[in-house]
Amino acid sequence: MSEEKGASATAEVKIVFTPSGRQGQVAKGTNLLQAARQLGVDIDSVCGGRAMCGRCQIDVGEGQFAKHGLISSSASLSEPSASEARYAEKRSLPDGRRLACQCKIEADLVVDVPATSQVHNQLVRKAADNRVIALNPPVRLCFIDVREPDMHEPSGDLRRVIEALQNQWPDRVSGEVSCGVHVLRALQQCLRKGKWQVTVALRGGNQIIAIWPGLKTQILGAAIDIGSTTISAQLCDMNTGDVLAATGIMNPQIRFGEDLMSRVSYGLMNEGGADEMTKAVREGLQQLIKGGAEQAGMTPEDVLEIVLVGNPVMHHLVLGIDPIELGGAPFALTVDTAVEMRASELGLNLHPGSMVYVLPCIAGHVGADAAGVVLAEAPQTRDDISLLIDVGTNAEIVLGNKERLLAASSPTGPAFEGAQISAGQRAAPGAIERLRIDPETLEPRYSVIGSDIWSDEAGFDEAVVNTGITGICGSGIIEALGEMYLSGIITAEGVIDGSLASRTDRIKEDGRTFKYQITDTVSILQNDVRAIQLAKAALHAGFRLLMDKMALERVDRVILAGAFGSYIDPKYAMVLGMVPDCPLDKVIAAGNSAGAGARMALLNIDQRQTIEATVRQIEKIETAVEADFQNHFVRAMAFPHKTDPYPCLSAAVMLPPRDLSDNVASDDNPGRRRGGRRRG
Amino acid sequence: MSEEKGASATAEVKIVFTPSGRQGQVAKGTNLLQAARQLGVDIDSVCGGRAMCGRCQIDVGEGQFAKHGLISSSASLSEPSASEARYAEKRSLPDGRRLACQCKIEADLVVDVPATSQVHNQLVRKAADNRVIALNPPVRLCFIDVREPDMHEPSGDLRRVIEALQNQWPDRVSGEVSCGVHVLRALQQCLRKGKWQVTVALRGGNQIIAIWPGLKTQILGAAIDIGSTTISAQLCDMNTGDVLAATGIMNPQIRFGEDLMSRVSYGLMNEGGADEMTKAVREGLQQLIKGGAEQAGMTPEDVLEIVLVGNPVMHHLVLGIDPIELGGAPFALTVDTAVEMRASELGLNLHPGSMVYVLPCIAGHVGADAAGVVLAEAPQTRDDISLLIDVGTNAEIVLGNKERLLAASSPTGPAFEGAQISAGQRAAPGAIERLRIDPETLEPRYSVIGSDIWSDEAGFDEAVVNTGITGICGSGIIEALGEMYLSGIITAEGVIDGSLASRTDRIKEDGRTFKYQITDTVSILQNDVRAIQLAKAALHAGFRLLMDKMALERVDRVILAGAFGSYIDPKYAMVLGMVPDCPLDKVIAAGNSAGAGARMALLNIDQRQTIEATVRQIEKIETAVEADFQNHFVRAMAFPHKTDPYPCLSAAVMLPPRDLSDNVASDDNPGRRRGGRRRG
Repeated sequence: MSEEKGASATAEVKIVFTPSGRQGQVAKGTNLLQAARQLGVDIDSVCGGRAMCGRCQIDVGEGQFAKHGLISSSASLSEPSASEARYAEKRSLPDGRRLACQCKIEADLVVDVPATSQVHNQLVRKAADNRVIALNPPVRLCFIDVREPDMHEPSGDLRRVIEALQNQWPDRVSGEVSCGVHVLRALQQCLRKGKWQVTVALRGGNQIIAIWPGLKTQILGAAIDIGSTTISAQLCDMNTGDVLAATGIMNPQIRFGEDLMSRVSYGLMNEGGADEMTKAVREGLQQLIKGGAEQAGMTPEDVLEIVLVGNPVMHHLVLGIDPIELGGAPFALTVDTAVEMRASELGLNLHPGSMVYVLPCIAGHVGADAAGVVLAEAPQTRDDISLLIDVGTNAEIVLGNKERLLAASSPTGPAFEGAQISAGQRAAPGAIERLRIDPETLEPRYSVIGSDIWSDEAGFDEAVVNTGITGICGSGIIEALGEMYLSGIITAEGVIDGSLASRTDRIKEDGRTFKYQITDTVSILQNDVRAIQLAKAALHAGFRLLMDKMALERVDRVILAGAFGSYIDPKYAMVLGMVPDCPLDKVIAAGNSAGAGARMALLNIDQRQTIEATVRQIEKIETAVEADFQNHFVRAMAFPHKTDPYPCLSAAVMLPPRDLSDNVASDDNPGRRRGGRRRG
Repeated sequence: MSEEKGASATAEVKIVFTPSGRQGQVAKGTNLLQAARQLGVDIDSVCGGRAMCGRCQIDVGEGQFAKHGLISSSASLSEPSASEARYAEKRSLPDGRRLACQCKIEADLVVDVPATSQVHNQLVRKAADNRVIALNPPVRLCFIDVREPDMHEPSGDLRRVIEALQNQWPDRVSGEVSCGVHVLRALQQCLRKGKWQVTVALRGGNQIIAIWPGLKTQILGAAIDIGSTTISAQLCDMNTGDVLAATGIMNPQIRFGEDLMSRVSYGLMNEGGADEMTKAVREGLQQLIKGGAEQAGMTPEDVLEIVLVGNPVMHHLVLGIDPIELGGAPFALTVDTAVEMRASELGLNLHPGSMVYVLPCIAGHVGADAAGVVLAEAPQTRDDISLLIDVGTNAEIVLGNKERLLAASSPTGPAFEGAQISAGQRAAPGAIERLRIDPETLEPRYSVIGSDIWSDEAGFDEAVVNTGITGICGSGIIEALGEMYLSGIITAEGVIDGSLASRTDRIKEDGRTFKYQITDTVSILQNDVRAIQLAKAALHAGFRLLMDKMALERVDRVILAGAFGSYIDPKYAMVLGMVPDCPLDKVIAAGNSAGAGARMALLNIDQRQTIEATVRQIEKIETAVEADFQNHFVRAMAFPHKTDPYPCLSAAVMLPPRDLSDNVASDDNPGRRRGGRRRG
């Protein structure tokens, strides 16, 4: 008996973890979860080894593993404990799955840790944007057993809670642990209701921001992109990174002005106007988060962490800062670093411990949304040169690679969003979004948002019977102008050629100029062409200036961020000079990159450090003080533009226009995908 | 010319600072404030050397200083600068005073730094309690010149504010500087209104908690003692430590119950009762601080720092924690460490950056007020043994010295506060507070609160015409019982001796017992004697138990904290066994020690560390689980009590009672001073 004991005390077994490949010798009988921790293998747990949370599920590798020189089988682990059996019965356990916390290692073993049981480096693939996000959430749930008070050794309840945290979650606690008053208020009742078992939400390793009686296994985070037009939110499980709900609303500030500058003016011209807009956007956030949480089957009280991005004006307004300084030179931001605060300080009525992290703005007109795009697209990690463009009232532009990053904004104005265009409108059902012109007949064909059927195809009239054809949106205008240029309706100088009126009655006199009529109510006027020329010239001059600073003639890839970017056809963008010359398949619509960046920062605190460090290093270029900006601007007014050779574009537009449009309209281009429709 | 320049560049002069004695050689022409900093001499400044704040005033020592081997005169400094002359004209400068920041050192010099110009180690003497407080405030005002925004080098306003702080106040900044959203909101307007000169309030060296345009030279702090009956506040200038206002109000919770336990019960028996009481005490705080700030000629917006002390029930209620757990075993505190939060989290409407620091509670019935007493009386720094007693519904007791400190509470009940006594009342005008009994005639003489005239002196009736004689307060009862024992009216067992009814009709039958009649409406009944016996026995058993733990037969000094302590006559306290035997002049009424401790913590962050460390080290004794407590309790019921020899007392009471009372009533005892009248 004693001999056997002696033998078993020294007996060691070999264990290999996949996919990490970590391996080592451990004493026979070692708890599997503990063995994993000893070997630095990342297995999740909320309940701390009590067979309650089910986070530590693993698979046993069965068979012979030549590489590791061992034979493994389910018999290498102890039989399921009573607790494990109870968990399997109540919550169900997939076939072959075991709870690591309940297994003792009996013999050599290969253990596979599925992605859902990994904490750090866990990969989340979200169909919506195909992005990979490593997890290292700022807030972690920790279930603890708390020592009961003892009159012989008096101590406060909080002290015993912190002791329990330190003893039961030594890997998660760093530094002196504290908590807010709201936790103190709830503490005693939670402890007694949970019979001295509670779950705490630990933030940053040292702050208890929430407490619940018993076991709590899920909390939410919200990644929110505050656009001038729409606010969109992704509600995520903070433990798994899963997006449980994605919602959006119109920015309630819209009633104070459609575009950014009209909102800055509203604040300037109305006493308390900025405060009104702050109130409106915060109410919008509250409504959005509440809706998202409910969509995820939870409540606003479950939302513990929020990450915000937005352009500088939205950034300032949501923080309650009057954006007046952003409306005029020298365009000084109040704060150009990341900001963290309690959600309650923004008037949000969520969990009282809920915290908000706002990504840093980059410059006066390059916002936290651009920082989100940088985080998502990571140009600072790449050798090749990326050009990131987020088109809005101001285009936010970032250029560079791991050596050097520059940022600037261009005053494009709202023309690309359909404003200042006679028949222009926001992207909404009924708006023309695609347009082709037959170069011989000069007849247009088009499709509208809400339908995939072209105007010359059967069923079009039925498809638009509900919406009508209400106008033309930003991407529609860009295609229209591109096609008008390619079909010769407008000259290189941007003049609608009145002489063509003899060939088609689509060209009509319009005062002293001409217009191109698409439908009874939608025409492209000479003034519309001018508005787009000004906008595209500004955008062109912006990135051209940055390319000059880096002495670049070419870029390796262009990322068009935002919903609008998803709808711009790269070819037409290039025809107009909205992007530099580049192989068409390297012009990538990134969808809601800013929101993706926000989600990365939500789920991984390392990403916060990354973007803070990157933004610090970005060189901020103020286009208003750069003489070259004006020169580039003037030259970029033309179609496509006068100075820069566009070899890639030339190769493309040398094809017959019809063939070309078919080609572009196909789904070969991996950058063209459907995303949110409205411009954020 | 160049020679002269060369000579002056190397010329050094000697400078000596008093009272610090620091000295050194500096280059001729060195700025005096900078020289002081180089030599580690503490001279205050808010404006940072701009001749605006007047904090850096110094005196020049004139004459020959043999000890330092130099001759000093006002000519050793440069002539007053234009800025200094302007300051002297606008704000006035005492004769001979100079602004250190404006002086260049021209020759050997002795400089005296007056106390008002010293930052750290500045001594504040406040007539009210004669306490010395070293200053090292958590919040400092820093005036800064901020670089204007520059389009060629874009950066956020906050970045330039922090840069200015780091460059202009390097000694005050430590670590990464951040600020709250309320500061961000105010930042841009303050900078522009102040023409890029602002004053910030820097807390803990790294948090900007407030900002004002231009120069701001005064902010307030409040040290507040939340008593069950009264709340008292001292409003201090955070820069000088001066008490600018001292105010008090009744605790608005009184409507929920006079004493602590009735409030705990109210919370227990009324749904939402604890919340009501929280709301009431917070409203009281707001009113108190507002009144104090106005009394100091300022506003609640000027209050940036608050320190709170109070017994555990008050501590919990003000933090919004239901005190229910304090009402029954095991008497667990929610939190036994210091707590810090924003004032807004307590619903206080002060400056949005205002912070609250709450001293730690020591144990379930030994509160943050006791911690304040410890901080003020500093037993942990002394070799001799101190016994600190704060009498309330529970007596809070701390015993020990620098080697070891013990704390306990005794369930005295509210009898000492006049409750449970037939004619008892709170200390208020009209209450009998002093009483002597002629041992021969058994006739009483007494005085009432609001008058110093005794009842057998001329003018007494006129003196009490407004108040009447309404009852007897705590200190009155203690004197009454002491005198009744000394004159033989009550026996050692505490029985009113009915046989004396034959000698005086002051002794009257009262059912099956007797009573001693003082006035028509005020008598001491047998039940009153019993109530006080129970209370004094509990108090005695409490300190006796602690003395046992430390194997002590004697203590070196007794500190009676609280207003009540100021009114207890040490001799009668000793007759009743409320304090251990001790030379009478070592029984010290410390006045509002708890409030003094709060003020120390308000004005000096080192004191916060001190009390936190001390409280951690105090051994907490729970009397309820100590068998010896019952034994001591039973034996302490008698008069004076059965077991302990009281040699000091015996020596005193051997004197004829009349002589003794005159002696005690004299002002020889330095511990007897008048303080706040009501029991806090």
